[in-house]
Amino acid sequence: MSFEKNSRILIVGLGLIGGSYAMALSKKGYSVTAITKEQSDIDYAVGAGIINGGSAEPDEKLISAADIIIFALYPHVFVEWMRDYGKFISPGALVTDVTGVKGALIDEINSYMPEGAEFIAAHPMAGREVYGVRNADDSIFRDANFIIVPTRDNTPGAIEKCKALGETLGFKRISYLNPTQHDEMIAFLSQLTHCIAVSLMCANGDPNLVSYTGDSFRDLTRIANINEEMWSELFLLNKRALLYEMDCYRACFDKLYNAVKDDDTKVLKDMMRLSTARRKMFNKVGE
Amino acid sequence: MSFEKNSRILIVGLGLIGGSYAMALSKKGYSVTAITKEQSDIDYAVGAGIINGGSAEPDEKLISAADIIIFALYPHVFVEWMRDYGKFISPGALVTDVTGVKGALIDEINSYMPEGAEFIAAHPMAGREVYGVRNADDSIFRDANFIIVPTRDNTPGAIEKCKALGETLGFKRISYLNPTQHDEMIAFLSQLTHCIAVSLMCANGDPNLVSYTGDSFRDLTRIANINEEMWSELFLLNKRALLYEMDCYRACFDKLYNAVKDDDTKVLKDMMRLSTARRKMFNKVGE
Repeated sequence: MSFEKNSRILIVGLGLIGGSYAMALSKKGYSVTAITKEQSDIDYAVGAGIINGGSAEPDEKLISAADIIIFALYPHVFVEWMRDYGKFISPGALVTDVTGVKGALIDEINSYMPEGAEFIAAHPMAGREVYGVRNADDSIFRDANFIIVPTRDNTPGAIEKCKALGETLGFKRISYLNPTQHDEMIAFLSQLTHCIAVSLMCANGDPNLVSYTGDSFRDLTRIANINEEMWSELFLLNKRALLYEMDCYRACFDKLYNAVKDDDTKVLKDMMRLSTARRKMFNKVGE
Repeated sequence: MSFEKNSRILIVGLGLIGGSYAMALSKKGYSVTAITKEQSDIDYAVGAGIINGGSAEPDEKLISAADIIIFALYPHVFVEWMRDYGKFISPGALVTDVTGVKGALIDEINSYMPEGAEFIAAHPMAGREVYGVRNADDSIFRDANFIIVPTRDNTPGAIEKCKALGETLGFKRISYLNPTQHDEMIAFLSQLTHCIAVSLMCANGDPNLVSYTGDSFRDLTRIANINEEMWSELFLLNKRALLYEMDCYRACFDKLYNAVKDDDTKVLKDMMRLSTARRKMFNKVGE
């Protein structure tokens, strides 16, 4: 199994990420079609040369003709779609996704996969704080990580093909995690940070603050601009891992709080030294 | 009182901020001298054309010759310096500072000011995560806020002159807060955000995380690279306001935590909508 030039690729869900996938793949010469809710998004994407064609309906012919199907839907929509239309997927097709949580989905998705087709989960760690195919931009993959999340049921061929997809999309780095590792990592690096930014913005409503804001506050709260439909779903689907990371973080915050309260300079400095040392590992070249 | 071209300016403490002040003022043609701990910093700054001269000792002549003195020291060093050498300041001199907290300092500094000289507090909200005069860079003021923190003891002339200083340094915006307002604002926008970033970095020591980190985590934790000597002092000097902001933030974080635990989608979405609406106020043009 490889990722042939004549592979017919179907994208289900033509939003920011689905649209950016379509843009990258069309630029590389692949034939890309799409199924999405709004006909106007199909029309826009055809006009922009992002896709060859598509449908606002779950068209059986379009689905069964696809060699590779990429789902870029909200988690619960993905599950419902597979329950209703998964049967149209051809044997031999490779199915992948872009969903931000894995453990809670993979078994259910597999239960709707027809015999002979294979689902392999993937998570492109890229995004912007804007939505929709009209904001599609394949340059968001350039500095980003593409994480393949195989289970023991996946074949080496499917893993290879998914890797080729990540390379074709232009990701800087491709890595592999099992579903549990993925969900723990995402709970800390992505979900907890969104929880922090949201809590911080909710904590103070003084409209005068904006006059005094520097770049560090802006950097810290950029992700407080958040799609509440998607993120509330993602949080609840990864509840166990997220609550664990929230607990660990709050214990550190409380330790710092008590050190301020008790004038405990030693604890304050120890925590700041640890934080500085750890943050240095995350520096980009030139930072 | 105005900010004449022939004003003799003395900077006490030639670190990143003191050095950047010196650089900006020298470029505008002012005569700048400095007093700082290390002779090598004086030598470097003279060689780089940032100052005209200076001393590694609290030289009485240098101090008494200055029309404007700017203190860029750690808070406790500033207080001790004024206690020991404040008497050398000339009547008619204007004294200002760059310290990140105000309420806990102003009265004590004023108690060491000689008759006829005036202290007016200011806070340049600019910085970098590097230190020392060798990293001095006056472009850090270009997009930043200069906050003047007058008390009822300050004269209109001193406030005017401090404003002229902020303009000469190239700050984008100059504003005025009383010491309490300043310290509350800084507790939320700056100190709380540093507490959050430090706690987040302390919460997870997995060295593999760096492979999966995206820009949003990097943005959120940039300020976790922190000078523990300075910030532990600043936190404790602003303890009341900081603990209040930490309490407000923690209440929001706990509310979000409980919403995740209880599958309370309504609370989750309400908080995310509030956070998104508030964050939009902080957007820069083009963001």
